[in-house]
Amino acid sequence: MITSLNDLFVRTLREDPADAFFPSHRWLVRAGYIRPVAPGIYSWMPLGLRVLRKIEDIVREEFDQMGAQEVRFPGLLPREPYQITGRWTEYGDNLFRLKDRKQADMLLGPTHEEMFTLMAKDVVQSYKDLPLTLYQIQTKYRDEARPRAGLLRGREFVMKDSYSFDMDDAGLRASYLAHREAYIRIFDRLGFDYRIVKADAGAMGGSASEEFLALAENGEDTFAYSPGGYAANVEAVTIPAPEPVDASDTPAAQVADTPDVPTIAALVALSNERYPRPDRPWEASDTLKNVVIKVRELDGSSYPLVIGVPGDREVDEKRLEVALAPAQFEPFTEADFAAYPELIPGYIGPVRGSEKVLGEGGSAGVKYLTDPRVVPGTRWVTGANEAGKHVYNLVAGRDFVSDGVLDTAEVRTGDPSPDGSGPLTLARGIEIGHIFQLGRKYAAALDLKVLDQNGKLVTVTMGSYGLGVSRAVAAIAESTADDKGLSWPREVAPYDVLVLATGKDQAIFDAARTLAEQLDAANVAVLLDDRKASPGVKFTDSEVLGIPTVVVLGRAFAAGNIEIRDRATGNIREVAYTAALSEILAEIQH
Amino acid sequence: MITSLNDLFVRTLREDPADAFFPSHRWLVRAGYIRPVAPGIYSWMPLGLRVLRKIEDIVREEFDQMGAQEVRFPGLLPREPYQITGRWTEYGDNLFRLKDRKQADMLLGPTHEEMFTLMAKDVVQSYKDLPLTLYQIQTKYRDEARPRAGLLRGREFVMKDSYSFDMDDAGLRASYLAHREAYIRIFDRLGFDYRIVKADAGAMGGSASEEFLALAENGEDTFAYSPGGYAANVEAVTIPAPEPVDASDTPAAQVADTPDVPTIAALVALSNERYPRPDRPWEASDTLKNVVIKVRELDGSSYPLVIGVPGDREVDEKRLEVALAPAQFEPFTEADFAAYPELIPGYIGPVRGSEKVLGEGGSAGVKYLTDPRVVPGTRWVTGANEAGKHVYNLVAGRDFVSDGVLDTAEVRTGDPSPDGSGPLTLARGIEIGHIFQLGRKYAAALDLKVLDQNGKLVTVTMGSYGLGVSRAVAAIAESTADDKGLSWPREVAPYDVLVLATGKDQAIFDAARTLAEQLDAANVAVLLDDRKASPGVKFTDSEVLGIPTVVVLGRAFAAGNIEIRDRATGNIREVAYTAALSEILAEIQH
Repeated sequence: MITSLNDLFVRTLREDPADAFFPSHRWLVRAGYIRPVAPGIYSWMPLGLRVLRKIEDIVREEFDQMGAQEVRFPGLLPREPYQITGRWTEYGDNLFRLKDRKQADMLLGPTHEEMFTLMAKDVVQSYKDLPLTLYQIQTKYRDEARPRAGLLRGREFVMKDSYSFDMDDAGLRASYLAHREAYIRIFDRLGFDYRIVKADAGAMGGSASEEFLALAENGEDTFAYSPGGYAANVEAVTIPAPEPVDASDTPAAQVADTPDVPTIAALVALSNERYPRPDRPWEASDTLKNVVIKVRELDGSSYPLVIGVPGDREVDEKRLEVALAPAQFEPFTEADFAAYPELIPGYIGPVRGSEKVLGEGGSAGVKYLTDPRVVPGTRWVTGANEAGKHVYNLVAGRDFVSDGVLDTAEVRTGDPSPDGSGPLTLARGIEIGHIFQLGRKYAAALDLKVLDQNGKLVTVTMGSYGLGVSRAVAAIAESTADDKGLSWPREVAPYDVLVLATGKDQAIFDAARTLAEQLDAANVAVLLDDRKASPGVKFTDSEVLGIPTVVVLGRAFAAGNIEIRDRATGNIREVAYTAALSEILAEIQH
Repeated sequence: MITSLNDLFVRTLREDPADAFFPSHRWLVRAGYIRPVAPGIYSWMPLGLRVLRKIEDIVREEFDQMGAQEVRFPGLLPREPYQITGRWTEYGDNLFRLKDRKQADMLLGPTHEEMFTLMAKDVVQSYKDLPLTLYQIQTKYRDEARPRAGLLRGREFVMKDSYSFDMDDAGLRASYLAHREAYIRIFDRLGFDYRIVKADAGAMGGSASEEFLALAENGEDTFAYSPGGYAANVEAVTIPAPEPVDASDTPAAQVADTPDVPTIAALVALSNERYPRPDRPWEASDTLKNVVIKVRELDGSSYPLVIGVPGDREVDEKRLEVALAPAQFEPFTEADFAAYPELIPGYIGPVRGSEKVLGEGGSAGVKYLTDPRVVPGTRWVTGANEAGKHVYNLVAGRDFVSDGVLDTAEVRTGDPSPDGSGPLTLARGIEIGHIFQLGRKYAAALDLKVLDQNGKLVTVTMGSYGLGVSRAVAAIAESTADDKGLSWPREVAPYDVLVLATGKDQAIFDAARTLAEQLDAANVAVLLDDRKASPGVKFTDSEVLGIPTVVVLGRAFAAGNIEIRDRATGNIREVAYTAALSEILAEIQH
């Protein structure tokens, strides 16, 4: 059946939507693929739904192929299982909660770990039933604080989520690798330029968790990679600690007046002016900045924490979030400072003279963790715990110790790579997949045990694997759209070919329809633009809609020719109408 | 790819679930197709999901074929559009409502009239864009007071809902008929034994709204049909009013003592004993029962209503519900009686002597509506508005009048049909589809207008069409399951053929796998039961699972034979293994 643009339910917009800062968002709305309904919530129009379903089909194909079995959980779920695992609380405001007419607590599923675990528990009984992989392609809900970027970060979205169930770690590792391979096949088919990066530090630097990031300038995720092949989300980068430094020649620590230095830059400038260092100028990296935050535990209790980082770096909030999870952090307020009078804003440091201030046993009664770079022997300019004074040549290990290491300073291009292969480079991407060796957390909480070969009950170990299906629509658009509109890779395009007739000659329109019918008969998904509209409107729309191949019947038709335009490259070639069908088929099958 | 029961994620249960009173519910759970998660909320396991998706595919095929275009709306919706149309309130407790983190009111979509209307408004501009039909296959939410019967009445369910948009009534009628035809094709393909019945009275007896009911003894819907082809949901049956009766010979009304008659039967018995009627005994249908209820309007206000019905009939609550909608009704409590002292329970009637009690201007100040059978001239035994007294020979029109007609008495087999073709017969069914000429209600509320051929803005007229996809899974199971388990029609079966190997002979298992592979290569969806389990377990499971064709390789294999069993008929025939493939293919294609 041929769809004509006269009939297709679509309307392209000439203006950008007001809130669309991302190309994918802008063009998916302008081209009539999706429409906003509420912040982070979208309706799918026919063209968008075709792309979504093509991606779903590819995911389903690859998952069926790997032997995973498809199930489908409800979106609306009872509280109990999430209560047992603690996630009813842990999810915080990100969880949509509601009460039913009988006042029972319910939630909209953000992920379904609990449900998968319980379903497996219902069915599997012994080692003979494992390994097992279940998946679903389903609608999920998260009440994001800042829904943005269209489908890239929505509050209702479509995900493929899957779980593997194994008897032991070796089985989990095999299931994990099978998923990794399936993801690679899927993202290759979807035409992504992507990187697989470590998603958490992992014990022993193993790959217990990896993210698939589609490269994108606008990507929300920043990752670092090394010449030697190391690649990790910045949250997962672990900074290798330098070797200890010999501090035997370092002069004794000395407190000095440092008035009016509200910033590290001012402190450095003043230091170079008043207390010049003999060997070289002071730099920001010579200072030890002590940042104080409040850590909020899950049970609601909180405590203050001072983080010491080299003064040339900020604490990276995302890295801090991951490092503290599941605890959260909050700003340290004036009221908090009032409660801890030993902490003098701008002049916080580990010691006051020979008195320990920060860390265990310190007078401030505040926990103190330092950056991995603060190794024994390193010397620092840092707060002297007196207003208007800093201390110089304060040596780690000699003059102060912290309570431990916290690796949350920002990662920068040029930083040494953990794999020792050279400097790190930073790049950005969109998370399109995440695979994770979850282990026994949910199986233990929900008592998923099976009999092993010796008839002993053992707790199952699980892997957790997410793939953003609706996000993939946007991520593909993000990486392929240009300044004229969408430009779909053929594998996910809503239609293969747009046949476009222009002019007033009925013969052209007849020929266009004939060609469309021939393509349709050859199993090509074809869209026909036989509207009574100006050529300008039609060409503009053809670019906005992003159908990969556009066939134009217009002026050249008088000479018996048509144009075949490639949307992505912009290439145009003229071929004889009589050869059109075979030429187009060759083009789209190549 | 061949699925073996060794690997398939399924576990059959030997016991009925405690709350399963419907065969479909019982067997879908026992056969491992679905699992309950919360009241009215189910998870789909692999076998169930395969059936669901087959039905989805059939619906999609027929809808694409009719030129409808698929879209998909969110499940989570903002309040505003539903506020505009009043449904935010009208839906009452059936609507799942929630607040997001910013305290914005949201809801889980029960149906999407508002969203379809707004999307059409976004795209269509003139008569050239119409007619238009949009559909979605999507998850819906209704907080049913009594979720029951498994998937038949759930709180989360999958529906196909579609809407037609037309310029005028003739267009709407054409769109309606196109849908009607598509529904007929779909339900025929799904193998339903169904009836199309009028769903509301409709002006002029037109077919403004029809339901598709799958015949089922357990069905929630009761419908009536006549020898002449009339068929209507009982809620939609209109009782033809009899001709007025000549009451010139009827004696004057007379009040008489009727102590201790708590029921109509007692009243009739006492009447026959004390006040025998000369021509024939009194019957229940000679009495006029006055039922008092409280009507609750949408705005929360309420008023009492007395309904007069012949004493041999109850007021049918479903018919009453439909007749009063969108108002609702509540029981008339003791406190209510206290507030209306003129209403004496058990002795309510239209008059006290010559004084009007019920109806406009009556002393009770209570509205009074009567059954269509209460035509002028009919005589009644009814309450005399004094404790222990009834009035005899009270003639409608002569001795009392009501405020109008309310047709809510129960409909019975044998009642005259509205089409005059003879007596009605009652039967029960499950509503699997509903088509409805909605008209301009939503288009007017949400201002969906388009330019007509004269450049004038006109309000679009809409049709609304629902089809229960997940309910269809259960309805098919309901009508095909037997006392041994499920029994799927081939078009929706999760697998076409179950190849079952029994015994200890490896050659049988090898032959079974070979046959399964041949079937798979011939594009037959095949399930292989090569488990190490007893023949009894395997045969029982084969019946529980309901795969339409079961091929058994067992004892007969020694003689080179296999059995082909038809699950539905129980027919078994033995064929040579060498002929197995062609025999099976012939069987499943027939």
